[in-house]
Amino acid sequence: MNLQLFDKQVYTDRRNILKQKIGSDGIILLLGNEDSSMNYKDNPYPFRQDSSFLYYFGLDVQSLAAVIDTDTGEEVIFGNELSMDDIIWTGTLPSVQEIAAMVGVTQTKPYDQVTHYVHKAITSGRRVHILPPYRPENKIKLAGWLNVSLQDVTDHVSLKLVKAVIAQRVIKSPLEIQEMEKAVSISVDMQLAVIKSTRPGIKEYELVAKANEVAIAANGRLGYGAIITTHGQTLHTHYYGNTLHDGHMVLSDIGAENEMHYGGDLTRTFPVGRSFTNRQKELYEVVLTAMDHAISMLKPGVKYKDIHLAASQKLVEGLTQVNLMKGNAAEAVAAGAHTMFFQCGLGHMLGMDTHDMEDLGEQYVGYTDTLKKETIFGLKSLRLGRELEAGYVLTVEPGIYIIPELIDRWQAEKKYADFINYDVLNTYRDFGGIRIEDNFLITDTGSHLLGKYLPKTLKEIEGLKG
Amino acid sequence: MNLQLFDKQVYTDRRNILKQKIGSDGIILLLGNEDSSMNYKDNPYPFRQDSSFLYYFGLDVQSLAAVIDTDTGEEVIFGNELSMDDIIWTGTLPSVQEIAAMVGVTQTKPYDQVTHYVHKAITSGRRVHILPPYRPENKIKLAGWLNVSLQDVTDHVSLKLVKAVIAQRVIKSPLEIQEMEKAVSISVDMQLAVIKSTRPGIKEYELVAKANEVAIAANGRLGYGAIITTHGQTLHTHYYGNTLHDGHMVLSDIGAENEMHYGGDLTRTFPVGRSFTNRQKELYEVVLTAMDHAISMLKPGVKYKDIHLAASQKLVEGLTQVNLMKGNAAEAVAAGAHTMFFQCGLGHMLGMDTHDMEDLGEQYVGYTDTLKKETIFGLKSLRLGRELEAGYVLTVEPGIYIIPELIDRWQAEKKYADFINYDVLNTYRDFGGIRIEDNFLITDTGSHLLGKYLPKTLKEIEGLKG
Repeated sequence: MNLQLFDKQVYTDRRNILKQKIGSDGIILLLGNEDSSMNYKDNPYPFRQDSSFLYYFGLDVQSLAAVIDTDTGEEVIFGNELSMDDIIWTGTLPSVQEIAAMVGVTQTKPYDQVTHYVHKAITSGRRVHILPPYRPENKIKLAGWLNVSLQDVTDHVSLKLVKAVIAQRVIKSPLEIQEMEKAVSISVDMQLAVIKSTRPGIKEYELVAKANEVAIAANGRLGYGAIITTHGQTLHTHYYGNTLHDGHMVLSDIGAENEMHYGGDLTRTFPVGRSFTNRQKELYEVVLTAMDHAISMLKPGVKYKDIHLAASQKLVEGLTQVNLMKGNAAEAVAAGAHTMFFQCGLGHMLGMDTHDMEDLGEQYVGYTDTLKKETIFGLKSLRLGRELEAGYVLTVEPGIYIIPELIDRWQAEKKYADFINYDVLNTYRDFGGIRIEDNFLITDTGSHLLGKYLPKTLKEIEGLKG
Repeated sequence: MNLQLFDKQVYTDRRNILKQKIGSDGIILLLGNEDSSMNYKDNPYPFRQDSSFLYYFGLDVQSLAAVIDTDTGEEVIFGNELSMDDIIWTGTLPSVQEIAAMVGVTQTKPYDQVTHYVHKAITSGRRVHILPPYRPENKIKLAGWLNVSLQDVTDHVSLKLVKAVIAQRVIKSPLEIQEMEKAVSISVDMQLAVIKSTRPGIKEYELVAKANEVAIAANGRLGYGAIITTHGQTLHTHYYGNTLHDGHMVLSDIGAENEMHYGGDLTRTFPVGRSFTNRQKELYEVVLTAMDHAISMLKPGVKYKDIHLAASQKLVEGLTQVNLMKGNAAEAVAAGAHTMFFQCGLGHMLGMDTHDMEDLGEQYVGYTDTLKKETIFGLKSLRLGRELEAGYVLTVEPGIYIIPELIDRWQAEKKYADFINYDVLNTYRDFGGIRIEDNFLITDTGSHLLGKYLPKTLKEIEGLKG
């Protein structure tokens, strides 16, 4: 196995910054991931290391844990050496000592020593900082090490550590941006393969196959379950069994995770056949106008929530022009009437995780102590609201989604009847959905599109289908 | 979502047979799987339902559980209905009542009612039969329902249920065989794409990409992590970063899981360039001869362990001819000397799981009360030893693997020095490994090759590279 790593100084520097942020305050315990079993123990899914573990310790290896002692500065990686059986079945690997050295850590211990190490810290009255576990086996381990019940593990999560890690990971370094450019460019190639392969009569899963091929052939993989669907109104569908028909559209939301585990997250919506219908063109232009407006607002100091609301207003203005909505656009957005068409958020942070650091808590990643995430329909799905800073990487992904079940429910309730033309809307019941999504780095003065350019105007998209 | 199901009578019949096997003896509790988180909770791996749940209840849907009351005959599926938020994000799905009806079950309850149902059974002094959990979240749930500690859950596994399920699943019905023919044929297409794409200069992961493309484009997926490697001596390597060089070989061990979740498991070893070297040809012929001999022995009543040993003897005879081994072949196998070259088993049961029902226990799937699995090197890795019966589906996969670390250790120990020509063997240190694998149904009189024919002779393989 060859480990893909940055220079070891990168990891040492990151850990030193974390130590400074935490101060002299006990130990930090970071868990790597294990293999996850698919249908029996020894048939695992492709291994995915925990992103925070990758950030501070880099090692894309199963069943490791690490400790940073913020009082003494000591750093220890816990892991087990290979047996001869392991070598026969899975090949040779450098020793734990050797791989630890690759990321600037000199001290290693067998994995089962974590228990003793943590118990000792606790009995000495020292604090043990942990991040929230999202995998059940890590929750079980933490419960054992901390000697608490499974239910109580989350009570022991260190908000101080959570905030320190987010503050560090949310600003992407030049080295990270380089990886993200690569990941987004692979994602562009995936989209191009999918768009060019789309034609009447084929199945959605044939397009999913293309996306996977391109990602894996670039030594990557899909960073999240592909959304490739002719039912674009279903925001996160992972069903791929539909046959594609001329006159309909495909919504393709896919992204590569590259070999360094940074990700892209792109969406395009395009016709199954050679060209969009007039209705499709009209709403596509509405979404694209909202997107361009949002992009023009990207710069440090602007609240992303305000960009979300401004883009929503552009959507309403466009929907009003095609007679799907009516009345004053600003009032419609203030009332929430746009959420009939745009039920979700304009975008989210992007990094090693597609929803970057979502395991650490959306409130802390996308919001602040003074700006809380809202709980009403629509804004409750906006993952990013806070003021932008240079170094953030995020998605911009407005959309229009026609959801028959929602029409029926709200029409029955006469909800937003002053803003929504239900009669017209009912003629769009089978329309589907449109989303357009790109990835941006926030710079000192504005924003930078990550990756190669992926066609997004009507004309460019139809050009690809030629 | 369209559920892929057999006729509901299939599932009803299977459950009725299980009820007969268990008799009037409390309740059977079967857990479906949940989504497994990759790097944060809402970013799951592709969902894989539990195979026994699929066998008896068919539903390829997350977060279900089911109970069969062997005393009253009552059958209940536990699951939660979708909310409007679910519909917006993941689309509509029939109600739990509707999907239960599709598999012949009339009674449904909300998921959280499992606790009450199981507690009631326990307090009534009734037995609760469970299968061994292999996913940590299911272990946690079982501990809660049974009101025992995590450590004690496995003590509550019902060996009676384990044996009944194995006895039923191990004999494949015509309907299942039809699915396995399809799955193996997709696997053949995957192999052909991989072999034809192989050429000097490309990376292993580019071949993995091809295998994935073919599987997914057939509405399937990989049933297990691909082994596509130029280091064929590493039995289960999942590292794909090597560049392929002329003169070397590739070992490709891949299999599709089709839409009904039945799998194929095929291996071919082939040259990177157009042709094998003479040394490669010599050892390839040795493996192929052993394979053909093993296949000729497949029929009801023969112990698979005996076929494994007979194939091992053929390997030794061939290795002796090329001067890698010496002495009497039967004695060499009796002593275990062949395990320098063939460290693993000749094959295993195949079905919905690649190692079929491995979660239920290898001892019970591959062996019997009177034939126990051995613990010595070599035979401890033979997953199947028992007498064959018509309806079994299994793999035959002999191989020769040159493992430098093993040579060094055993040569230092002078192990098997009467049978192994270490001087010659050391000139093969960089040889790699060869495995050839096909899938067979045991018939009343012999065996039937599953799926389309995949070239396997030297000449046929080289022909594909032309």
